[in-house]
Amino acid sequence: MTAVREYFAHIEPIAFEGKDTDNPLAYRYYDKDRVIMGKRMEDHLRPAVCYWHTFCWDGFDVFGAGTFGRPWHELEGQEMAEAKLDVAFEFFTKLGVPFFTFHDVDVMAPATNMKEHTENFARILDPIEAKMSETGLKLLWGTANVFSHPRYMSGASTNPDPEVFACTAMQIRQALDATHRLGGSNYVLWGGREGYETLLNTNLNRELDQLGRMLTLAVEHKHKIGFKGPLLIEPKPHEPTKHQYDRDVSTIYGFLSKYDLLDDVKMNIETNHATLAGLPMDHEMATAYALGIFGSIDANRGDAQNGWDTDQFWNDPLDITRSMIHFVKNGGFTTGGFNFDAKVRRQSIDAEDLFHGHIGGLDALARGLISAAAMVEDGTWTNFIDDRYAGWDGQLGRWMMTEASLEDIADKVSGGGIDPQPKSGRQEYLENLVNAYL
Amino acid sequence: MTAVREYFAHIEPIAFEGKDTDNPLAYRYYDKDRVIMGKRMEDHLRPAVCYWHTFCWDGFDVFGAGTFGRPWHELEGQEMAEAKLDVAFEFFTKLGVPFFTFHDVDVMAPATNMKEHTENFARILDPIEAKMSETGLKLLWGTANVFSHPRYMSGASTNPDPEVFACTAMQIRQALDATHRLGGSNYVLWGGREGYETLLNTNLNRELDQLGRMLTLAVEHKHKIGFKGPLLIEPKPHEPTKHQYDRDVSTIYGFLSKYDLLDDVKMNIETNHATLAGLPMDHEMATAYALGIFGSIDANRGDAQNGWDTDQFWNDPLDITRSMIHFVKNGGFTTGGFNFDAKVRRQSIDAEDLFHGHIGGLDALARGLISAAAMVEDGTWTNFIDDRYAGWDGQLGRWMMTEASLEDIADKVSGGGIDPQPKSGRQEYLENLVNAYL
Amino acid sequence: MTAVREYFAHIEPIAFEGKDTDNPLAYRYYDKDRVIMGKRMEDHLRPAVCYWHTFCWDGFDVFGAGTFGRPWHELEGQEMAEAKLDVAFEFFTKLGVPFFTFHDVDVMAPATNMKEHTENFARILDPIEAKMSETGLKLLWGTANVFSHPRYMSGASTNPDPEVFACTAMQIRQALDATHRLGGSNYVLWGGREGYETLLNTNLNRELDQLGRMLTLAVEHKHKIGFKGPLLIEPKPHEPTKHQYDRDVSTIYGFLSKYDLLDDVKMNIETNHATLAGLPMDHEMATAYALGIFGSIDANRGDAQNGWDTDQFWNDPLDITRSMIHFVKNGGFTTGGFNFDAKVRRQSIDAEDLFHGHIGGLDALARGLISAAAMVEDGTWTNFIDDRYAGWDGQLGRWMMTEASLEDIADKVSGGGIDPQPKSGRQEYLENLVNAYL
Amino acid sequence: MTAVREYFAHIEPIAFEGKDTDNPLAYRYYDKDRVIMGKRMEDHLRPAVCYWHTFCWDGFDVFGAGTFGRPWHELEGQEMAEAKLDVAFEFFTKLGVPFFTFHDVDVMAPATNMKEHTENFARILDPIEAKMSETGLKLLWGTANVFSHPRYMSGASTNPDPEVFACTAMQIRQALDATHRLGGSNYVLWGGREGYETLLNTNLNRELDQLGRMLTLAVEHKHKIGFKGPLLIEPKPHEPTKHQYDRDVSTIYGFLSKYDLLDDVKMNIETNHATLAGLPMDHEMATAYALGIFGSIDANRGDAQNGWDTDQFWNDPLDITRSMIHFVKNGGFTTGGFNFDAKVRRQSIDAEDLFHGHIGGLDALARGLISAAAMVEDGTWTNFIDDRYAGWDGQLGRWMMTEASLEDIADKVSGGGIDPQPKSGRQEYLENLVNAYL
Repeated sequence: MTAVREYFAHIEPIAFEGKDTDNPLAYRYYDKDRVIMGKRMEDHLRPAVCYWHTFCWDGFDVFGAGTFGRPWHELEGQEMAEAKLDVAFEFFTKLGVPFFTFHDVDVMAPATNMKEHTENFARILDPIEAKMSETGLKLLWGTANVFSHPRYMSGASTNPDPEVFACTAMQIRQALDATHRLGGSNYVLWGGREGYETLLNTNLNRELDQLGRMLTLAVEHKHKIGFKGPLLIEPKPHEPTKHQYDRDVSTIYGFLSKYDLLDDVKMNIETNHATLAGLPMDHEMATAYALGIFGSIDANRGDAQNGWDTDQFWNDPLDITRSMIHFVKNGGFTTGGFNFDAKVRRQSIDAEDLFHGHIGGLDALARGLISAAAMVEDGTWTNFIDDRYAGWDGQLGRWMMTEASLEDIADKVSGGGIDPQPKSGRQEYLENLVNAYL
Repeated sequence: MTAVREYFAHIEPIAFEGKDTDNPLAYRYYDKDRVIMGKRMEDHLRPAVCYWHTFCWDGFDVFGAGTFGRPWHELEGQEMAEAKLDVAFEFFTKLGVPFFTFHDVDVMAPATNMKEHTENFARILDPIEAKMSETGLKLLWGTANVFSHPRYMSGASTNPDPEVFACTAMQIRQALDATHRLGGSNYVLWGGREGYETLLNTNLNRELDQLGRMLTLAVEHKHKIGFKGPLLIEPKPHEPTKHQYDRDVSTIYGFLSKYDLLDDVKMNIETNHATLAGLPMDHEMATAYALGIFGSIDANRGDAQNGWDTDQFWNDPLDITRSMIHFVKNGGFTTGGFNFDAKVRRQSIDAEDLFHGHIGGLDALARGLISAAAMVEDGTWTNFIDDRYAGWDGQLGRWMMTEASLEDIADKVSGGGIDPQPKSGRQEYLENLVNAYL
Repeated sequence: MTAVREYFAHIEPIAFEGKDTDNPLAYRYYDKDRVIMGKRMEDHLRPAVCYWHTFCWDGFDVFGAGTFGRPWHELEGQEMAEAKLDVAFEFFTKLGVPFFTFHDVDVMAPATNMKEHTENFARILDPIEAKMSETGLKLLWGTANVFSHPRYMSGASTNPDPEVFACTAMQIRQALDATHRLGGSNYVLWGGREGYETLLNTNLNRELDQLGRMLTLAVEHKHKIGFKGPLLIEPKPHEPTKHQYDRDVSTIYGFLSKYDLLDDVKMNIETNHATLAGLPMDHEMATAYALGIFGSIDANRGDAQNGWDTDQFWNDPLDITRSMIHFVKNGGFTTGGFNFDAKVRRQSIDAEDLFHGHIGGLDALARGLISAAAMVEDGTWTNFIDDRYAGWDGQLGRWMMTEASLEDIADKVSGGGIDPQPKSGRQEYLENLVNAYL
Repeated sequence: MTAVREYFAHIEPIAFEGKDTDNPLAYRYYDKDRVIMGKRMEDHLRPAVCYWHTFCWDGFDVFGAGTFGRPWHELEGQEMAEAKLDVAFEFFTKLGVPFFTFHDVDVMAPATNMKEHTENFARILDPIEAKMSETGLKLLWGTANVFSHPRYMSGASTNPDPEVFACTAMQIRQALDATHRLGGSNYVLWGGREGYETLLNTNLNRELDQLGRMLTLAVEHKHKIGFKGPLLIEPKPHEPTKHQYDRDVSTIYGFLSKYDLLDDVKMNIETNHATLAGLPMDHEMATAYALGIFGSIDANRGDAQNGWDTDQFWNDPLDITRSMIHFVKNGGFTTGGFNFDAKVRRQSIDAEDLFHGHIGGLDALARGLISAAAMVEDGTWTNFIDDRYAGWDGQLGRWMMTEASLEDIADKVSGGGIDPQPKSGRQEYLENLVNAYL
């Protein structure tokens, strides 16, 4: 165990040093106590580190074996789980983030069947609780991994076999109970295999009903145990499946409507998943706010030229700022946070690289927050939009939105007096405006 | 006018000659009176030719001028409109299809303002009605073009200027009235500019509300005038706009839920638009059936390597059959039909090319229908799916879907007796099965 | 070992039964001795089964563990390697294909270092040779896996560390020698990690020179040992790397020109890799023929909606026929063959599924060959193309291609007499023509 | 003509005011005389405004009519051409750029046949020359539009009809002569229709040979008239055609090799075209430098979610900086420049919008240049890369690159002493480093 304990030993806690620092192991923008628009930066961003990419993944990909050589991967069972817990909390603490996130299988000793799963997961909860208490770390959300085990190869809730649905229910129940016990702010569901490989063997109606049923069961259970946080669905259009039902924010909105779940379920939007769905992140965020289902963010990025989930750290100042202006304008998070669902590259094999990745990601969010807050506070942008739609607050607009019939409106046009004048959309001016805040 | 009249004069009506014919101007599969699963092929497919691609487009693209040299494009005003009507109906008749479709601006003398628009559109309705009566052709659907005129550059219903909304209302009212008068089976709305170029100048909430309002107005008007057909929204994710609100079937389902329009509005699904949305056509069709909003089809195809609406004729036997099995299994159309929203390539400049395109497209649908009907009638495929989900009709399945709580199910798993056995999804077997019917 | 021996025991050798058979474990089109255009079908297609997808992969993906439960995966070391050899040759034989393909690591006992690698690979060659002799199976090509071991994480030939280049050289030398000894027809190089993850840490010039050097060394070695077959590079644009240098046929042509390798290196084109590169397969095949570097085919398909290498069995009759017409017109293979670089889906867990996949794939190629041969033999298509370009065999065409200067031609246009008349490209007619042969 | 003259009258020449200015019609970063790495900013960037997007396009798209209402579009013939020339040079001058670019058809009175084309183009050269002399503006490059006229619908140089090749030759000869007369620095060829719509009607070998021939003729003519600048090919993968031969930098390198044109032809790389080809801009620039064919840049951007050429102004600081570090490291331009091949959105209908677009574009390039120069001058990055490959300058590296055979190297590995140690690729560290310079 010595090796595990020493893995991050040579790295000092990461401090804010300002944008001119030469120290790559320092924050240049993330100054957690700095107040932006009346709120501490940490309270705006609520950053979380995820367990899976950073402590579970060994660097393997489809074409090659693991490269990382993390010492805790040499261990087994509960010993491995506890060693991982140690390094994880050392990392969280040195990085200085307030939150973490996990799947059941990330934190526990590996299990080969449902019984072992239950026992092994139960066994790690005390140690986690102790670590949280010792460090002050909080749980942003928990979730159940119902996609990696072979039993879920044809779906979890949407499996053609009801016994698999039952196993799914069990894992969700246990993970939701654990999240509640650990004081988690939200509970997440990512339907990694809730979709199909081919429509040729799929009954869409049944599978959608099964998925709706599982969510309903989870909502009822949440209320029963008194868990106050929302359930969050994480959209993704595909991968590993050919098609995943929880494609994007708008698709899920329709699904939640159909199964009457809009009051209890919100979105955990992931940047890379939006990219895979052919949607920019600002669209997904603005849409979730517009539909009243914004919840939390899995902050990462994809590769514009590659068609799979690369889960890189999100670090493009312009893209982040464009998203953050919707975040700031709409009041940011209530229970959510920015979870770094991001991983270092397979070639980034050193302990330092884990820090570089997270420091860069958190700094990029902080920088985007600063830019976006300045832009929203300034008012030039928000006023521009308000002015653009001002006609809808006038007599004609209100009449058409609330009283008039199609015929009334058509008659009014025929009667004359309606002669719309084109007005520039000013896109280039607005794009320059954003750049001025970067 | 002589030239216009002679344009198709050398082409004989297209006959069914069977699959071994060498005549490229004959049908090889489309035998309209052939009975498939108890219904005439024509009644299954309800094929329609669209006005715009075939009679309005002159072959221009963004990088080059028109190439077609259609003689009626040399004419102007009402004379042009009536000459076009003549050749269009000559084409419909020679092709032997029962339906056509149009936008208001396709059929009328060009207008420069709303007043002229109203008058010019009104003036062509008598001639259309006369042609329909003379030939027996029917109107599958009508629609209003509220995207080409510069006044619609920033949206029609979703325009920041309420006066543009008013003009939209007027065009929709007139087009819906005309569709009703001409006995149309459906009325279509494609929101070509109902979206945004940049979120930086856009108020999403307002625009969605405006779009919901316009649809509500149209639904109310439909009921008022006694139009029995459904309103059909045509999904498209983008182009010409960066983002269009009516992205795909699932997105629109959510929108219709939100504005309480599910009873009156269904889908007009276009193959190429599905492709642009990153979705296969069989998915969109199966989803629309599953959600109860299947309406009609704009039959065409995109290019897998190009990212814009190429609107080619749909002619891939495998892709069509894969879609047709959902069509056949779900009972096909009620009011809808297969509209050839497809155009010949810009280099296909001869009158014959218009026939080659439509013959190929109609033959491909007929072939797909024959294959899919055989596959569905045979039962091997449908039985496979039924068997795969049979567990859900058993005791465990029914209990979990209707009675049990999450805790109940979890307790049952803990109690033992739940031990799901993996079962092959048989994708390769099923893919081979489809190919056996081609 | 009993379990391994029994894995395919219940499956009879696959026979040709004709297109009306109901037997899913029979060929419907692949009749190996049927003569098409003067050559046996088997001699046209030269089908090969690959080792890796079918005998090495356990069904894992990035989001989940292996699902297949193949009994030989329970074994270890040389025992595993020999058991795998047994089942592989049983499969090849029952399927009735003449060829197989492998990477060094596919066939041998796993190794943890270079020394073991050399020894373990050497140890399996006698057993392979014995199996080949016993069954009559032949080796289409061999290759070295220089991408899976962690040492290759930053490239093999293009690694910043010359020691990794040395290891690569050793593996290639041994695999090329083994391919020669086993009578292989070709030797393949797929540069899975020969690219970059980020340009930020990459020296493009050096890496390209290193790659050119390795190919030159391999070519020299091939001549030295008297290996008569070509080296084949397999294009792929990315995955696992962000960018792979051997992007597509045209890119590699430029690379081979630069390093003067055009005489000795040809292409092993994979359908799914072409898809990932944004190119249709017929383009890649026609381009390789046009540039004189056509070699062999890795027959599979991707998923049009998913952006990674799905390696499914290629089974779209239209797509295959469109590719096969170039194959037939250009004389097909010399040393190459159709290698099924395709895998059953992760849910297709039964022994039968391996047969369904390969039977469907081989039948689809056979069907495409029959269609394409009929189309090429008929002459309608080839004559159409010849006629279209006939002007280039006339006086003006020959003069401009061989004698005239830009000024001469411009003067001729100014002088009059040049007045090009547009002629239809007849795309729809030609598309219908292809469909008539399916 | 009054209206034309007044179009930009209310806008003052654009001045550099520094990054804190509130004036949207001022430069915040582009300070043309500021010296960066020993060279004036203007001499680094050599910015050019293009004629076509800004003065010829009327705002039409495939789905709608022109929106811009530019007064010169109301005029006709030579009067229109000269009015356009006036406003164009007023715009160039007020913007303060040193260069412009044009196609023959952009600047001249429209022509309906080749004779008129020749005459009308000739007639505008004196006025252009006078304007250039009067204002000091210079021509970055000229080009011939051989894609918009219907005669080019099936290609220009690659047309099946040799008479179209002849017309192409005539236009290129005249445009090249004009570029030479006007002191242009380069001559550009974009093969907009040099590709195919379907391989079914295409003879690839002939078309490639025709394209090679035309380039050879142009190169010979260039030498004959003493034009010193390079010919520049502009890569694009498709659009308007399904496939364009000049796909990307690497593809064109192979083409130039095949037709022995590497000495005289270089690349004019367009950002949006790289995006369409699935390649990031930094890759295309670095590749062109690596292959020795870097020439000039068409600076714009596409939309990551849309699959066509949106030609927006390039304004992402991170993306530009990542490209600019290759530009700076490799010495920037010789004859090339940054040409704004970018257009304001169709809704940006005001004169000011043209300024906003270009100001934002030029400021973004200036900002990127400043960041990239700082990063390259600092040395941290370049040293990192040099260190990473240092082994190749050692004994083993040099021996393998120049002397050893495959066998020698393999023997050396067998002999021991080669044991590569993995080294982190440090991608996250390097990404943070770039962000520190923004």
